[in-house]
Amino acid sequence: MTSVGKVYLVGSGPGDPELMTVKARRLIDEADVVLHDKLPGPEILGLIPEDRREDVGKRAGGEWTPQEYTNKRLVELAREGKTVVRLKGGDPFVFGRGGEEMEHLAANEIPFEVVPGITSPIGGPGVAGIPVTHRDHTSSVSFVTGHEDPTKEESAVDWQALADTGGTIVVLMGVGKLPQYTQALLDAGKDPETPVALVERATWPDMRVATGTLESIVDVRDEAGIEPPAITVIGGVAATREKVVEFLANQTGEWDGEGEEE
Amino acid sequence: MTSVGKVYLVGSGPGDPELMTVKARRLIDEADVVLHDKLPGPEILGLIPEDRREDVGKRAGGEWTPQEYTNKRLVELAREGKTVVRLKGGDPFVFGRGGEEMEHLAANEIPFEVVPGITSPIGGPGVAGIPVTHRDHTSSVSFVTGHEDPTKEESAVDWQALADTGGTIVVLMGVGKLPQYTQALLDAGKDPETPVALVERATWPDMRVATGTLESIVDVRDEAGIEPPAITVIGGVAATREKVVEFLANQTGEWDGEGEEE
Ligand SMILES: C[S@@+](CC[C@H](N)C(=O)[O-])C[C@H]1O[C@@H](n2cnc3c(N)ncnc32)[C@H](O)[C@@H]1O
Ligand SMILES: C[S@@+](CC[C@H](N)C(=O)[O-])C[C@H]1O[C@@H](n2cnc3c(N)ncnc32)[C@H](O)[C@@H]1O
Repeated sequence: MTSVGKVYLVGSGPGDPELMTVKARRLIDEADVVLHDKLPGPEILGLIPEDRREDVGKRAGGEWTPQEYTNKRLVELAREGKTVVRLKGGDPFVFGRGGEEMEHLAANEIPFEVVPGITSPIGGPGVAGIPVTHRDHTSSVSFVTGHEDPTKEESAVDWQALADTGGTIVVLMGVGKLPQYTQALLDAGKDPETPVALVERATWPDMRVATGTLESIVDVRDEAGIEPPAITVIGGVAATREKVVEFLANQTGEWDGEGEEE
Repeated sequence: MTSVGKVYLVGSGPGDPELMTVKARRLIDEADVVLHDKLPGPEILGLIPEDRREDVGKRAGGEWTPQEYTNKRLVELAREGKTVVRLKGGDPFVFGRGGEEMEHLAANEIPFEVVPGITSPIGGPGVAGIPVTHRDHTSSVSFVTGHEDPTKEESAVDWQALADTGGTIVVLMGVGKLPQYTQALLDAGKDPETPVALVERATWPDMRVATGTLESIVDVRDEAGIEPPAITVIGGVAATREKVVEFLANQTGEWDGEGEEE
């Protein structure tokens, strides 16, 4: 009988290969197989030899949901004695279903290890000159998913409570429902002039940033044509970018062009 | 006249040198000088040759506060044409005053770049088997500083609103005032049985984890003798560790010993 392998739940960071951890790079080189979806982005996926990677993002429509398929495949490969990297965009435990994968592994007695990655709601704004916390503006920051409809009764996100914290609010998966949750925050009493920034494909070669206010950002999104993946930053910190952008070098070492913003 | 240098605001991650980004490692090798305080931890600071590093954490008691001194020194070195790495524990923009340093650089027309790092409130719980978000428990997570006294009128942190979000709450700088803010959350109506975990020196060789509930965690802290730096995780996710710890390999590849917890 082959002895059981090991699974590494690894965060890839937001997309720039240099923002991967040293450990993630080493594990990708050493793994027998890397299971991934699309989120790590083309540059990072390009580092993994094709014969050692498996795209588990595509497998919808079969007998299992993609998540069930991934869980099953991780256990299967480990039982074959393989060293497996499960590569996830950003950090595996920030809205990435890494928690479920970890529980599934433990329930099936598969040894595993967690390797954190740079999460996009911090690193994305960061490279754009937006600090998610700042003494002058906030003593808390909340990360929330934007894909639930805030007008539905059963919405699990309490936008009133988030508004009441007074802290920065960072929304993931929040391009499509931007009109709904910005309205929910206005209804909760947030100032319409609250600065808002959208950071699209953060740290990718074609990253874009668009800025506005709680009131204007839906129009800004439409004019710029912002699409997922993007991060929405809501709060005074979003205006920091304006103050610093002239001296901010971007990811590739070039100056942030003015034309980059709409 | 020498041309002006450049400052990199770089996150070191929580302490394990392998959890530094590839870019952070490269910049440290290339920099003329690395300004740091104690938070990156002994293993990471040990990677930097002594003649190229300057501890700016010590400089209190002089003419400037440590923060003023750091700001001044960054500008001074860049004006000498130097390539400067300002190395900060975790991510530079998560309660790290990186925002202030960035604004100071821009105000003095110094080119700079931001290099995110693994932040301790995500990576710390993560390596301990605690996902800060999880479908079954939460659709938001809030990071907050614990060093303000919640009984003071002027406390900037609204514990009631944080409790009302229903999401995971992660407290930084929260060892000393643990009794005050756990009480504030109980007063805000949080269930006394809410799971709580303390993660001390996350990813350092002597990392420890202690778990309890909102009601018991102060005693747990005292018995275990938990000291800063530590992360407090409050919410259902904190109980995930129990379910998985038997199969969780720790940072150094060893099994998480049972004796590790108090
Ligand atoms: C399922 S969540 C996964 C988040 C990931 N685990 C993390 O820590 O960044 C997917 C969302 O992450 C955000 N995201 C991920 N990578 C991004 C990037 N490079 N730029 C902007 N947003 C990104 C987007 O909001 C996207 O809708
Ligand atoms: C001034 S804050 C800086 C946070 C840092 N910028 C980050 O992103 O992790 C200092 C606090 O970070 C937390 N911290 C930093 N490194 C840690 C570690 N290795 N283990 C546990 N907590 C840590 C502790 O709560 C500590 O009091």
